[in-house]
Amino acid sequence: MSVTTRRWRLRGRPSELIRTDDFYLDEVTLPTLGAGEVLTRPLFLSIDPYLAKFMREWQGPQAEWSEGIIVGRTVSRVIESNSERFQAGDLVLCNAHWQDVDVRPEAELNRIRASAMPASAYLGILGSSGLTAWVGVTQVLNAQAGQTLTVSAAAGTVGSIVGQIAKQLGCKVIGIAGGAGKCAYVVEECGFDACIDYKSADFEQRLAAAVPNGVDLHFENVGARMLDAAIAVANPHATIALCGLIAHYQDDRPIALARFRDLLYKSITIKPFHFVHFESTFGLARKQLSSWLADGQLTFRETIIEGLEHAPEAYVGMLKGDGVGKHLVKVGD
Amino acid sequence: MSVTTRRWRLRGRPSELIRTDDFYLDEVTLPTLGAGEVLTRPLFLSIDPYLAKFMREWQGPQAEWSEGIIVGRTVSRVIESNSERFQAGDLVLCNAHWQDVDVRPEAELNRIRASAMPASAYLGILGSSGLTAWVGVTQVLNAQAGQTLTVSAAAGTVGSIVGQIAKQLGCKVIGIAGGAGKCAYVVEECGFDACIDYKSADFEQRLAAAVPNGVDLHFENVGARMLDAAIAVANPHATIALCGLIAHYQDDRPIALARFRDLLYKSITIKPFHFVHFESTFGLARKQLSSWLADGQLTFRETIIEGLEHAPEAYVGMLKGDGVGKHLVKVGD
Repeated sequence: MSVTTRRWRLRGRPSELIRTDDFYLDEVTLPTLGAGEVLTRPLFLSIDPYLAKFMREWQGPQAEWSEGIIVGRTVSRVIESNSERFQAGDLVLCNAHWQDVDVRPEAELNRIRASAMPASAYLGILGSSGLTAWVGVTQVLNAQAGQTLTVSAAAGTVGSIVGQIAKQLGCKVIGIAGGAGKCAYVVEECGFDACIDYKSADFEQRLAAAVPNGVDLHFENVGARMLDAAIAVANPHATIALCGLIAHYQDDRPIALARFRDLLYKSITIKPFHFVHFESTFGLARKQLSSWLADGQLTFRETIIEGLEHAPEAYVGMLKGDGVGKHLVKVGD
Repeated sequence: MSVTTRRWRLRGRPSELIRTDDFYLDEVTLPTLGAGEVLTRPLFLSIDPYLAKFMREWQGPQAEWSEGIIVGRTVSRVIESNSERFQAGDLVLCNAHWQDVDVRPEAELNRIRASAMPASAYLGILGSSGLTAWVGVTQVLNAQAGQTLTVSAAAGTVGSIVGQIAKQLGCKVIGIAGGAGKCAYVVEECGFDACIDYKSADFEQRLAAAVPNGVDLHFENVGARMLDAAIAVANPHATIALCGLIAHYQDDRPIALARFRDLLYKSITIKPFHFVHFESTFGLARKQLSSWLADGQLTFRETIIEGLEHAPEAYVGMLKGDGVGKHLVKVGD
């Protein structure tokens, strides 16, 4: 019996900004399951900024990118198994194509054990977003009680957790986000001390007013404009954790910082990082995140678009800054 | 008896590039010595890149900058003393105006004890240049045997010492400098493994060819073009010590890095530093530098212009990249 599925791929290299018509839906027949392979159905596709680089370059960690085929993180359910380690019904974390169903080798699957948390949380607060935030705040920035921390994209899945973790650790936390709605979410639901709207005309002045004692730690998700604003209010010997550059994934232009010299004048260290390099800390991270979640001390939101057919809109919307929290496409159940 | 002296000051705010006619020589009558003050005569003025920022902004650590009066590091001799701590004939390190003689408070003077080294060395290899290089290589980069280190402005006073210290520690060291003469100095006299001429058309390819195993540590003195070249050949988790931005002191334009995204993709940390913040290590630094000097394992050169009247030419020449090693103006004996 052959299985066919819809599959999203790229029409060509996206021009400057990724648009929905850069994607098209084709149909493919899947190979029969080989030894150790399983048939999976995504419950959720993870709509992540980092994919934009691979989309533009047709090049990524998986070979299929060279054909314009998208491979992203998913929470999937095993439908059929030719592996001794998995059986139908298992929930797994895995990279997969943006398809209705996919064939994956067992080595790529990570089982999700039964838990009180919804499956989608394993792509967000208990997955890469939560680990990224935890690693950034505790390992990269080494945040201490009494310090002031700023974070950009504060209403996003990583930024919103960064601020909440820093609050747990006793920091003063100021978010930066776009629009009154996002700022209200960040302060009222996530409990930040303040959130500054970068779309306001007097953004830099308002940021400065919110941090009368300057900033010790900054967590950057966006790009040059936010970095310049953060450098302006940074104290001498401040540290910047560089986690993402979402404003710069859709072009190759040089990144210009008006305040780059101030890195030198104020001895401000920039520490770019990727959470996967801190694997030895994941056990502690998951324990602490789960404990805070259980105690109601961490909150998170999801922006969920229903239906595989809407994945490009979900992706473009995420890049444009629509919605808050973790962006997901719901495919199956 | 009143003492008059020539004094260099700025005519106005220098436009884009600092030129010799931005300076003029006036004459001032010095106040009589107050309690604890001494009359000093500079033997050498230290011709340092960092002064360019103060010259452009008419603002610096000393109040006189607001009047366009230059204050720089000097090795000076005490001519007359109204201090119990100093007497005529003493050699001292002090900040002073670019004058034939100056009046300084005793608190600003650091005595130079008799030594086998020439007095000028206390502005270079045994002064801020040597301490900067030592702190950068050992404390900021934490260089280890077997690592590959690149350094820009490799024929300069700091860069040439950086590479020699890294060689002592067992690193492979590649310099970057402008022109065949400087590159020859860096390799033949300073003992670097190679030196790449950034003025050559195929600079980046030649740099890449010189570091087949990539670069672990980079020491930056210059600016965006060198940083981009270094980031291109940097290994994942490389560290960049940011010591100076000489290419960017003469304008306020944003600094654009074509490869800024690669800091993130390769987790390359940027550590800007100023040697004065590592004072607790100076004792060890001076001991090690002196020992290497005594053993003939460190070499240095000076570019000396004679006569206070030529200070502006010396300054502009240094900014343009004339000469190698430590730039000095010889004023007195």
